[in-house]
Parts: sequence; structure tokens; C-alpha cells
Amino acid sequence: MKLNLDCIPCFQRQALQAARFVTDDEKLQEEILREVITELVDMDWSKSPPEISHIVHRIVKERTGEDDPYKTVKKQYNDIALELYSRYKKFVEDSSTPLLSSIRLAIAGNVIDFGASSGFNLNDTIKTVLTKDFRIFDYEKLEKSLQRTGELTYLADNTGEIVFDRILLETIIDRYDVKKINFAVKGAPIINDATLEDAVYTGITDLENLDIIKIDVGMNSPGLKRTGAEFLDICANSGTVISKGQGNYEALSEYKTIFFLLMAKCPVIANDLGANIGDIILKG
Amino acid sequence: MKLNLDCIPCFQRQALQAARFVTDDEKLQEEILREVITELVDMDWSKSPPEISHIVHRIVKERTGEDDPYKTVKKQYNDIALELYSRYKKFVEDSSTPLLSSIRLAIAGNVIDFGASSGFNLNDTIKTVLTKDFRIFDYEKLEKSLQRTGELTYLADNTGEIVFDRILLETIIDRYDVKKINFAVKGAPIINDATLEDAVYTGITDLENLDIIKIDVGMNSPGLKRTGAEFLDICANSGTVISKGQGNYEALSEYKTIFFLLMAKCPVIANDLGANIGDIILKG
Repeated sequence: MKLNLDCIPCFQRQALQAARFVTDDEKLQEEILREVITELVDMDWSKSPPEISHIVHRIVKERTGEDDPYKTVKKQYNDIALELYSRYKKFVEDSSTPLLSSIRLAIAGNVIDFGASSGFNLNDTIKTVLTKDFRIFDYEKLEKSLQRTGELTYLADNTGEIVFDRILLETIIDRYDVKKINFAVKGAPIINDATLEDAVYTGITDLENLDIIKIDVGMNSPGLKRTGAEFLDICANSGTVISKGQGNYEALSEYKTIFFLLMAKCPVIANDLGANIGDIILKG
Repeated sequence: MKLNLDCIPCFQRQALQAARFVTDDEKLQEEILREVITELVDMDWSKSPPEISHIVHRIVKERTGEDDPYKTVKKQYNDIALELYSRYKKFVEDSSTPLLSSIRLAIAGNVIDFGASSGFNLNDTIKTVLTKDFRIFDYEKLEKSLQRTGELTYLADNTGEIVFDRILLETIIDRYDVKKINFAVKGAPIINDATLEDAVYTGITDLENLDIIKIDVGMNSPGLKRTGAEFLDICANSGTVISKGQGNYEALSEYKTIFFLLMAKCPVIANDLGANIGDIILKG
């Protein structure tokens, strides 16, 4: 996806939010915002949103000296979601449509996104998403793909959310003949995206036959580029590729064999999907 | 109120929205956004939000050649609200607490604000606000003030919304001994704020003993400064002053004799009021 003009003020909102997670010094917050704005106005806006996002968050990291401004909220939402794990694990097991129920939960968890907005309510969102109509619903296609697949590649999005991804993965493992899972997390901290540390903390890495793949987030972080040959080869060799959230959709929307699970949370993504904000999407 | 750093990206969102109301030319939209950003980054941020807002919207007007970018949506929301007038006029007349019911409606109408956000639902908001708890509720104080008053000064906010202001004013006229009303509208178009033309269109100017006061919106527009001696004298001579909406609150929050009726729609205002977004306020 191309950058939309709406992304420009949104990057600044993100930078300000990230700065405030690290420092109460309003003078420093203002300096960071001014530096981000100066960088943005001098920049060619034909880059992709994730590329610009990395530049913006690099400024926050450099100016605050904090490599992971979202550290505290990331742990907080992992903990909140882990507390909900047993209840929703049982909910899925008791469900007459466990795959669909766990997909709904994984999408509800996608509301935990500090990139897209500043305010959300996880419990209210779960309640809504468990019964809400999908705006795009390629469920049968995903089900058929899982029936045939040997290998599943799963691109995670945010901390907290990955606890619900774990329930979905466990549901898939229990019901389909998946021999290997490639679970892709970010190679370094960016916004509240999940990294290897979060995958370990939330028990994802305890799943059988699961490999972690690190995704490059710029700034010489370790990992594979989402649109690089090496990662796309892994996707091509997987029977099923599931991508969570807006950022992965922005990077990969042109790849038609990927299943995108997300909640539309910003006008730019919603518009691209022909959806409204708050709509839930299973696009394959 | 002082400008908050959150206002900086919000001004850009507003500029982009205003530009899009006038032109589909994405190149021109980008140029306008870049000019707004350049102006903002070079600016001293100790100005008040309305001051900066005027500068930002001047750029949109100059670059598009359209003096009133919100013209179409302003008429649209006046018409939508006028269609609801009879139903809610009757609702208030049938109510056991007509003053309170018309206050709630006037606050619900305050959701029609293109400055604060891009998306709102008027009908859903009315339904909610008619029963919602107030975050700040100085109702008795306002009632007592109206019982004693001879003259009422009323600062309007947005188009569409002023139809609900009309119901509130009619309710006050019918029940209290108000000899004169000063109804303050903006002296020139700014965002979707109500001007004289809207007061005429929605029948406000047909109310008895009502004078229109024009408020200066910068750029050599006609009208009195909200914090200038002449307008503050009018307020001081009125038994009751009612101010609608966020913009008037930003300009006048330090004046403790004014009753502020509004819905908190942005984090900056909400924070200043100790409220959450969506909260309804009657602060006196």
C-alpha cells in the first residue's frame, strides 16, 4: 500500500505518544515532535507507511535514549491477555465452530494497537467481535487451505494480541495436519509489535514444531524483509500464510495468496479494504 | 487554554479534511498539507489553539481559492437538524424536565464538529446523550441564574447544532423572564462554525428580542474578539452567559461566570475538564 496523506499527522500522533511513554518532559516532547515534523516535511512521501514509521520511531528512540518506548504497555497487555487465556481457550473448546471462534478472538486481539489509535477497550471489543458480521469473510477458502496445508506461516502483529494468536494456532494444530509453523515476529522493538521476547513470554514458543522468523524493522535490525525474496520463499513454500493486522497488510496486500486477519482501525486501511473503521476482515 | 502538542497533528488533519471538501486534486492536497506543516514547524506554539487554527484554515482558503470549504456540509447539517426540529421540539414540550431535555439536545448537537473529528453519528449521539450521565453537572446553578436573568448571551458553535440551540433558547424564553438574547456567531466562515447566514437559515433570527453578535475569527473578519473588552462587557451585563462547544471553551475557560455546554471530543479538552472523550459537560 502507498502512503496516504492522512498518515502524515498520524505519524506525529504516534511519535508524541511514544515520547510520552518515556518522558514527562514537555520540552523534550515538543523537541521530538518538531524534529519528526521537520523530517516528514523534507521527505519524499512516496515511501510506504512502515518505512516512514521506522524513521519516525527512530527519532523518538534516539532523542529519548530508550530503545523500546512501549516496553511497559507491551508487558501490560501481554499480562492482561494472558489472564484472559484460560477463559477464551475454554470458550473456543466449547464452541461448535472452534476455528471461527478462535479467528474472531485473534481479530479482536488486534485492537491492541498503539500505532493505529490511542484508546481502545479490549473486553468490549472481544464481546463485539465474537458476534459481529465480517466485512470480508473468505472463511471457507481459509478452511480449505488449512485442510490441505503441511506448513503454516503466521505473521504476528502486536503484544497482547499474540495470546489470542496462540489460541488460534492451538485450535489449528488440534484440528488440522500442520507439520510446521513459521511464526513471524519483529526483529526489534517497534511500537507495540510483538518480538521474540513476547513470543517466549506468552508461551507461543512452546508450541510444537514452531519456528520463529524475525522480520526486519529497519535501522539495521535483525530479520528478513517482509517483501524480500527469502521471506516470500518461506511463504511460497507454506500451504497457508496468515497475516495479522494493519502493518502486515500495508506491506503485503498485493500478495493474493495470503490470508489477512485484521480489524480496520484507520481510515486509510478501511478505505483500501472498502470497509469502515471497526470492521473485521478475513480476506484471502 | 494553552495549546497542547496533540493539537499540532490535529490541525493538519483538519487542513487535509478542509482541502478535500474543496478539491479532489491529490497533488494540491499534498501541497496544502506541506505548507501547513511548514508554517506549523516555524511557529511559536504558545499561541492559543483557535489562533493557530485560523492560520491553518487561511492556508487552505488561499490555496484552494474557496473562502468557505465547509459550505456544503454546513448546509447539509443545517438541513438534517431542521428535519429533526419538530420531533425534538415536541419531545422537549412533552418532557417533565424541558430545560434539562433541551440542554441535553443542545449538547448532543455539539457532536456535529468537523474540527474535532471526521466521523460522528448524530442520531446515535442524540439517543445516547438524552440519558447519559453528565461528567460535570452544574444544572441547578444554571437554573438559578436563568431565574434571575434579564439578558442572556449565548455563544453558538456549529451549524446544524444551532437548530438544537434554537430549541434550548425557545425553552428558556417560554419559561424564564429573559428580555434580551445576544446570540454570538462567527463573523466569517471557519470550519463548520455557524455564521449569521446559518442563524437566519435555521430560524434563530426570528426569535423575539434576539440580537446577533459577530465574533472575530481573525484574517480581518468582522466581529468582536471573544476575549476583548467589548464582548466581555456584553457578557458582564448579561445575567447568564452560555457557551457552546470546545472552541469557545478553549478561548473562555478562565471566565468563571460562563456556563459551558459541550461534549468532550478531543483528548486535550477532555483532559482539561478531567473528563473522557464522549463525556457531556454542563460546567458553570
